Amino acid sequence: MRQPLSEADAARIARHKPAVGMASPRFSGVASFMRLPLIDPASAPGAIDIALLGIPFDGATTNRPGARLGPRGVREASTGTRLFNPVTGIAPYEIAACADVGDVPVNPIDAAETCRRIEAFVAPLRAAGIVPLSVGGDHLVTYPILRALGRDRPLGLIHIDAHSDTDDSQYDGTRLTHGTPFRRAVEDGVLDPRRCVQIGIRGSLDAADERDWALAQGMRVIPMEEVLVRGLPEVVAEARTLVGEAPAYLSFDIDALDPAYAPGTGTPEWGGFSSREALFLVRALRGLDLVGADVVEVAPPLDITGVTALAGATLAFEILCLLAEGVARRREAADPTP
Amino acid sequence: MRQPLSEADAARIARHKPAVGMASPRFSGVASFMRLPLIDPASAPGAIDIALLGIPFDGATTNRPGARLGPRGVREASTGTRLFNPVTGIAPYEIAACADVGDVPVNPIDAAETCRRIEAFVAPLRAAGIVPLSVGGDHLVTYPILRALGRDRPLGLIHIDAHSDTDDSQYDGTRLTHGTPFRRAVEDGVLDPRRCVQIGIRGSLDAADERDWALAQGMRVIPMEEVLVRGLPEVVAEARTLVGEAPAYLSFDIDALDPAYAPGTGTPEWGGFSSREALFLVRALRGLDLVGADVVEVAPPLDITGVTALAGATLAFEILCLLAEGVARRREAADPTP
Amino acid sequence: MRQPLSEADAARIARHKPAVGMASPRFSGVASFMRLPLIDPASAPGAIDIALLGIPFDGATTNRPGARLGPRGVREASTGTRLFNPVTGIAPYEIAACADVGDVPVNPIDAAETCRRIEAFVAPLRAAGIVPLSVGGDHLVTYPILRALGRDRPLGLIHIDAHSDTDDSQYDGTRLTHGTPFRRAVEDGVLDPRRCVQIGIRGSLDAADERDWALAQGMRVIPMEEVLVRGLPEVVAEARTLVGEAPAYLSFDIDALDPAYAPGTGTPEWGGFSSREALFLVRALRGLDLVGADVVEVAPPLDITGVTALAGATLAFEILCLLAEGVARRREAADPTP
Amino acid sequence: MRQPLSEADAARIARHKPAVGMASPRFSGVASFMRLPLIDPASAPGAIDIALLGIPFDGATTNRPGARLGPRGVREASTGTRLFNPVTGIAPYEIAACADVGDVPVNPIDAAETCRRIEAFVAPLRAAGIVPLSVGGDHLVTYPILRALGRDRPLGLIHIDAHSDTDDSQYDGTRLTHGTPFRRAVEDGVLDPRRCVQIGIRGSLDAADERDWALAQGMRVIPMEEVLVRGLPEVVAEARTLVGEAPAYLSFDIDALDPAYAPGTGTPEWGGFSSREALFLVRALRGLDLVGADVVEVAPPLDITGVTALAGATLAFEILCLLAEGVARRREAADPTP
Amino acid sequence: MRQPLSEADAARIARHKPAVGMASPRFSGVASFMRLPLIDPASAPGAIDIALLGIPFDGATTNRPGARLGPRGVREASTGTRLFNPVTGIAPYEIAACADVGDVPVNPIDAAETCRRIEAFVAPLRAAGIVPLSVGGDHLVTYPILRALGRDRPLGLIHIDAHSDTDDSQYDGTRLTHGTPFRRAVEDGVLDPRRCVQIGIRGSLDAADERDWALAQGMRVIPMEEVLVRGLPEVVAEARTLVGEAPAYLSFDIDALDPAYAPGTGTPEWGGFSSREALFLVRALRGLDLVGADVVEVAPPLDITGVTALAGATLAFEILCLLAEGVARRREAADPTP
Amino acid sequence: MRQPLSEADAARIARHKPAVGMASPRFSGVASFMRLPLIDPASAPGAIDIALLGIPFDGATTNRPGARLGPRGVREASTGTRLFNPVTGIAPYEIAACADVGDVPVNPIDAAETCRRIEAFVAPLRAAGIVPLSVGGDHLVTYPILRALGRDRPLGLIHIDAHSDTDDSQYDGTRLTHGTPFRRAVEDGVLDPRRCVQIGIRGSLDAADERDWALAQGMRVIPMEEVLVRGLPEVVAEARTLVGEAPAYLSFDIDALDPAYAPGTGTPEWGGFSSREALFLVRALRGLDLVGADVVEVAPPLDITGVTALAGATLAFEILCLLAEGVARRREAADPTP
Repeated sequence: MRQPLSEADAARIARHKPAVGMASPRFSGVASFMRLPLIDPASAPGAIDIALLGIPFDGATTNRPGARLGPRGVREASTGTRLFNPVTGIAPYEIAACADVGDVPVNPIDAAETCRRIEAFVAPLRAAGIVPLSVGGDHLVTYPILRALGRDRPLGLIHIDAHSDTDDSQYDGTRLTHGTPFRRAVEDGVLDPRRCVQIGIRGSLDAADERDWALAQGMRVIPMEEVLVRGLPEVVAEARTLVGEAPAYLSFDIDALDPAYAPGTGTPEWGGFSSREALFLVRALRGLDLVGADVVEVAPPLDITGVTALAGATLAFEILCLLAEGVARRREAADPTP
Repeated sequence: MRQPLSEADAARIARHKPAVGMASPRFSGVASFMRLPLIDPASAPGAIDIALLGIPFDGATTNRPGARLGPRGVREASTGTRLFNPVTGIAPYEIAACADVGDVPVNPIDAAETCRRIEAFVAPLRAAGIVPLSVGGDHLVTYPILRALGRDRPLGLIHIDAHSDTDDSQYDGTRLTHGTPFRRAVEDGVLDPRRCVQIGIRGSLDAADERDWALAQGMRVIPMEEVLVRGLPEVVAEARTLVGEAPAYLSFDIDALDPAYAPGTGTPEWGGFSSREALFLVRALRGLDLVGADVVEVAPPLDITGVTALAGATLAFEILCLLAEGVARRREAADPTP
Repeated sequence: MRQPLSEADAARIARHKPAVGMASPRFSGVASFMRLPLIDPASAPGAIDIALLGIPFDGATTNRPGARLGPRGVREASTGTRLFNPVTGIAPYEIAACADVGDVPVNPIDAAETCRRIEAFVAPLRAAGIVPLSVGGDHLVTYPILRALGRDRPLGLIHIDAHSDTDDSQYDGTRLTHGTPFRRAVEDGVLDPRRCVQIGIRGSLDAADERDWALAQGMRVIPMEEVLVRGLPEVVAEARTLVGEAPAYLSFDIDALDPAYAPGTGTPEWGGFSSREALFLVRALRGLDLVGADVVEVAPPLDITGVTALAGATLAFEILCLLAEGVARRREAADPTP
Repeated sequence: MRQPLSEADAARIARHKPAVGMASPRFSGVASFMRLPLIDPASAPGAIDIALLGIPFDGATTNRPGARLGPRGVREASTGTRLFNPVTGIAPYEIAACADVGDVPVNPIDAAETCRRIEAFVAPLRAAGIVPLSVGGDHLVTYPILRALGRDRPLGLIHIDAHSDTDDSQYDGTRLTHGTPFRRAVEDGVLDPRRCVQIGIRGSLDAADERDWALAQGMRVIPMEEVLVRGLPEVVAEARTLVGEAPAYLSFDIDALDPAYAPGTGTPEWGGFSSREALFLVRALRGLDLVGADVVEVAPPLDITGVTALAGATLAFEILCLLAEGVARRREAADPTP
Repeated sequence: MRQPLSEADAARIARHKPAVGMASPRFSGVASFMRLPLIDPASAPGAIDIALLGIPFDGATTNRPGARLGPRGVREASTGTRLFNPVTGIAPYEIAACADVGDVPVNPIDAAETCRRIEAFVAPLRAAGIVPLSVGGDHLVTYPILRALGRDRPLGLIHIDAHSDTDDSQYDGTRLTHGTPFRRAVEDGVLDPRRCVQIGIRGSLDAADERDWALAQGMRVIPMEEVLVRGLPEVVAEARTLVGEAPAYLSFDIDALDPAYAPGTGTPEWGGFSSREALFLVRALRGLDLVGADVVEVAPPLDITGVTALAGATLAFEILCLLAEGVARRREAADPTP
Repeated sequence: MRQPLSEADAARIARHKPAVGMASPRFSGVASFMRLPLIDPASAPGAIDIALLGIPFDGATTNRPGARLGPRGVREASTGTRLFNPVTGIAPYEIAACADVGDVPVNPIDAAETCRRIEAFVAPLRAAGIVPLSVGGDHLVTYPILRALGRDRPLGLIHIDAHSDTDDSQYDGTRLTHGTPFRRAVEDGVLDPRRCVQIGIRGSLDAADERDWALAQGMRVIPMEEVLVRGLPEVVAEARTLVGEAPAYLSFDIDALDPAYAPGTGTPEWGGFSSREALFLVRALRGLDLVGADVVEVAPPLDITGVTALAGATLAFEILCLLAEGVARRREAADPTP
């Protein structure tokens, strides 16, 4: 059970509540993530616990583009999320001060430069003890985030995706693409491959190298077919065991979902997760020591019906609940008497 | 087994058949519900058993609008339904005279006045022994329908929805919104809360009041998570027991479906029912004493692919089968020898 | 020629610049109007000259809804506008401090209450000498704005629209609809009908009352056919003469445009203005004493291609240039030596 | 000036009025053409003057299909038209009894059989003195209509289109396609080629045969480029002279419009008419002795924004005004004293 | 385990590889099926084992059209498929020479003539020992394919569909429609009805004749409800037993899928298969002696989100894997020592 | 008047005809540009005069992406173009051998590398005397094309666009963006700035640098406002004079068109050219010595209605006519007696 908040924390947290639909309609006002206040963390040190940020970059996409518009699309859809989660019982805005800290200032034409800027944006958040929840953007954006968060010690990883994204390079040697982030991160020592689990991998392949490399590093790759045979509960249990209690990161590529649930993404693969499975998966990660998370590859121009942005926003809210609980857990551990 | 029809009934029913696709294509002709004849029941007393009507009102919507175009959209999609249901074996147009009786003349800007008009439209149907199957419109429209049908004795309710719609008020005291119909109906005594069952409730919440009030009245609220744990058969069995054999109403909010199956609605919630689950649910209500039903919250402007209108039309057909069987059952009970 | 700014004004204006696309991409960051800073004018007295605000209300719409999502849609599209206007030479952010002040907290179900809230939102802006540029919402929203701005002396009006919006009531006596705002405003004495000009009126009619009443009040109604015969330059010249040098308001209903240019609106009428004609029209109003303006009836759910939101955003930018110049003109008149 | 109606005509006409938007919203009720009553002319002899009918056939389309859904789409959009035309001053429902008579029962797979059915549907209308205004369907449908209407004496023709539709055959001898109706009609002697005018022809060609044949018959083909050089007024004047005072037919292929105004058609051609030009064109035909008319090739599945159906509905209303005036003119000529 | 290829086969197969995404992006180049080379089999005898062909005909559609654009849509989506199937382990382009052989030159207006052309296109493929994988087009196209392939001995059939397509005729005697192909094929003796299995049949019906006839011939019809009760594994096992080891054909109508997974088809039926079930179904057919297959009824104009074309392309790839393995099996059986 | 072709040329040209719609439907077959044969010019030296190629690269886009899918989209739409141009009388496939030579193998993530590949693709075409007509892709692709074509002597330029694309750099020094190609080309000496004309420039600006630099080089920039004042004929006459008789290039950015005509592009600007103006503009360039041309910035994911791809295809056909005539002119000049 949650411990009572200190007065200072209570006041601080109270200053960072979303606008509420019962007072002003959900479709009103500027669309920030979850209708949260917009904060520049540099000018408000100590104010927030969790930063929601956008990374509007899709310049590393090898297939259909559009994910650069993902942060805008997810922000818009996220204004439909509300204050607490009746399934898990978590009320994130009661236990953690959250804010929309804006977008990383990407260079849409330069993947390497953008990686530097992402890392430079996230590193101070980490230094300030703020947990980042990022919305992409294509999957390359996870690489510099991991560099910022895993600098001190390699992180574990829960990676939910249709694709392993552990290619070495594409197009004759291009090493920074949305198909390579986890290989780069392992090479840089910011991910501990033996604590990395990929869930939901599927689709036809051009070469086995991607998967073979991952396996050779000791990463655990759980294809969709294995999920179907063993069932999600067993798969998640294994993933939790592998990742363990040390700090870990959660990366959710929206194309892990079936195209019926997420048509608006650059590289859809048939036969993916349903909404209910995805909710189960995320909620089942409760209690892991997540130091950051992202939702990537929502591509609004390909999302005519809006269901993909809705998926991204709902998953972001569910993940936010996990992160908020982690904030509370760490706060209580540090200071057992309020 | 069905008893043979009296000659008069047979002739009457034969006059109210849908146009058949084998003769004229389904895409031809004015789009009435199910390609049924258009009838003004006032000018044809005794002619029909079941009235399909539209209620093109979304002026009580607190989120994205568009459900006022629902009756048009569902009519269009319903022209694809056919004459009998091979799963249940019900041939509704063989056992009940059905017609499209047009739309309630709503005032799109005045929710209270529209409620009065809906009640004034449905009350004479009930007085004439005609069972109404309404297509909304936002969910507020169910409130005046319940007033018209439950005037004499409070009704039971099967309510399939993502939201409880038992708020007290919104925006500083507005009491007629699409989030309040069932609270109003219980307050007015036209619903018996202990015979009300809500199935599929889910999504984040701003406040627990809505749910707490419903529970306090004795309503049975079955969240989606409970459905997933116990399974639909058990849930429906409980619902049937609670509603019992007394007259009841069936209200199907299209947002009970997952956004993959029904993107075109104002307040979609991730993690809802699939088409096959919804078909199971409705068919499992066979034999209840339904005195009316509705399908609400189909919003065609948000339904670019048309699957939501298709969902609404298919559900309306399945519900029509239940209502037709009820008509036949009551006819046979009243007059056991044809 | 513009006079140099006082140091204080220069500093103040410099604090309110839009984010620039050369530095951060236009698709990045939270979408405020024109990428301007978000300001609460109450907490920053004296800070700004022009307030861009949203009024997300379409509860007075008698046709297809969706304009409640207009502010969000126009904000998104407006992030593509830039810093200066090479045709008129106006650089609005150099001569006036502009900000996005958020949305009026509407009640989507209550037109009368929403009118009160709009008036209560705009009146303090006017009291603080801030010029409002509003984005609707349906056309009813103009009525309370006019009440707030015309309280002291009736205003002139340039009204660009397909419809006169001078109905008395609709649906048996409903007097606050998007078809009645200018009648209500004249009745309230906040518009001077002899200084009101409607341009572009067209389409079939149910009754002549709307137009006859307007003419009887002395309003000038210029149907599209007259525009075509006389040409826009002559029509605008007449409009300028009629409105004169006294304070006036500009209301641009997006359905003044042809559906090819603005399909995303509730009541499109064939045969409207092109983009180039609309640009000409707005630019030709330069020098009028505009005390406020609005762009209304952009309905994003009906705007699949996005061109209607683009139209709204471009028109808002052009109008902003006029308003900014007016601010500068008034500032210089008040204080001829900086 | 119109003569007063006889009492009988006045009563008859009064029984055939559209539902009015001021009373019930335009989006309510079953979508008949113009919200007119649905009448079976066979069962109501003498009741109506003008029949609006749908011909949902696109089985003769050589390009993208979808026009079979045209009648539904145009009916839906036509519910936005109103009672009188302020430009021409015509109030069609005051001078002619109009009704929606439903759709021709086409066979979507058999063009020859469908032609027979269309002719069999229209011939009795003509025999009853009812003027048909048809909504297609692809352009082949005009051929059997012309057979029904021109049986006694060849008709003149105003044909507004991007394509001449005077091919001999396609695909190795198929003679009934949407590219051949006017050749077939001339061959059958139901069109008088010297009184046929085609306006707006444009686009690249595979062969000159189509055009050469038309010219050889004495048809007047006015390509778009000639329209641009000479101007619409002069072109229409020539067309009126050629067609003369004898009975004529008006056929408007929606692809005469530019794709910006009518994207939803099977064979769009760049560089077509604008909405205002099309309105001018149709209105300029006032006074011709039109014995029937059609609007064809609206293809709703290709009309995502709905502007093409809006174009079709607006043109149908404008043409209806011409036809209604013709009815009144003929009535007055036959019986000069009411 | 596969036997090694002869040198000639290896060289031949190596000449028919798809373009690979790692070298040139998937969105580049002309869209052939699977990015395969375009080959005219008549001019390259002996070159290929499997022909992918399009049949762009929807002239036998009794509902919404658009399937004539199916081959283009599926080709486009198929450029996203890759080289091998990690689930089944099949690398089709390593064991069979595949090519895109273009489209059958249909006559869109003449179903009978088109049937002749399809048969004339497929017969030489069969004569040359090439296995056809066809992409429709409406379901009628299967009939002439079966005539070409089943001429010598009646084939077995796995037919995955929402509809039995065993009508006798429609619209007063039209016998070649997309609702009749399997009845025609049985009548012609090219299908052995006792080896025909239909899986997934569902939806309301106008008449029982269609199903009764199929059952009377000895066809096995497995409605969706039976699938749900017994489970797919058991159903597929029964189907395999019935079809046996003799030559069989696989026909996959995309409307077998639920509209959430395949909205873009002419006659969608609620309650269909999910993507994962469809993948299971196709993969479970491994080892049957398939002499041809098709995927039909993908209608791109109705497929705004593109998920239906993606479904069609993914299924085509999975089926191609089965066919390629069959080619290899037959090659090895014919010549056991390479 | 055209001279007769040599026998060799006639035979060669006859081998490169598009598939014709009268024989096989336009929607059938693999979609190559204009339904032309697919040719690898390296393996068929001397075969063709004009190469249509795709450049599916949008990695230099600073705004909304999607133009990488432009070649696919324009190919698809181009299958609707036919054999000759009745306005100009040009039958391109009678006077020049044309082919679709496929796409440049771009690297979507590396603008510099892609520029090298484009230049390496086009240079051999030029060396072989083949005129390239390229379809982009974003506007950066024009830069390497100009490098390949202007290597020997600087070219003149007709540049039709909303934007000058003469920025120096964006985002802190990125010099290869779709806003810089013409500055780079002038710097490299492959464009002669005094023979460069930009037509249709418009929209708000962030800085005057782009335009000032162009003017300082001696480029002629004709903003849309100047076009409106002077008229297109006068503007084109000036442009022809400036470009003169020396070799020149034509670059058509689809955003030169108004968003009503071309919504599907990354940076739409209100107030652009209509279809008829664009046709006039292109046709008025007849007789210039064009050594290459392109159509760029068609972005299919943003082109829901397809009108932008149609615009691109129609313009490509009109430009092809100009290029074909140039081929014939040069052939005749080189060898005056056939």
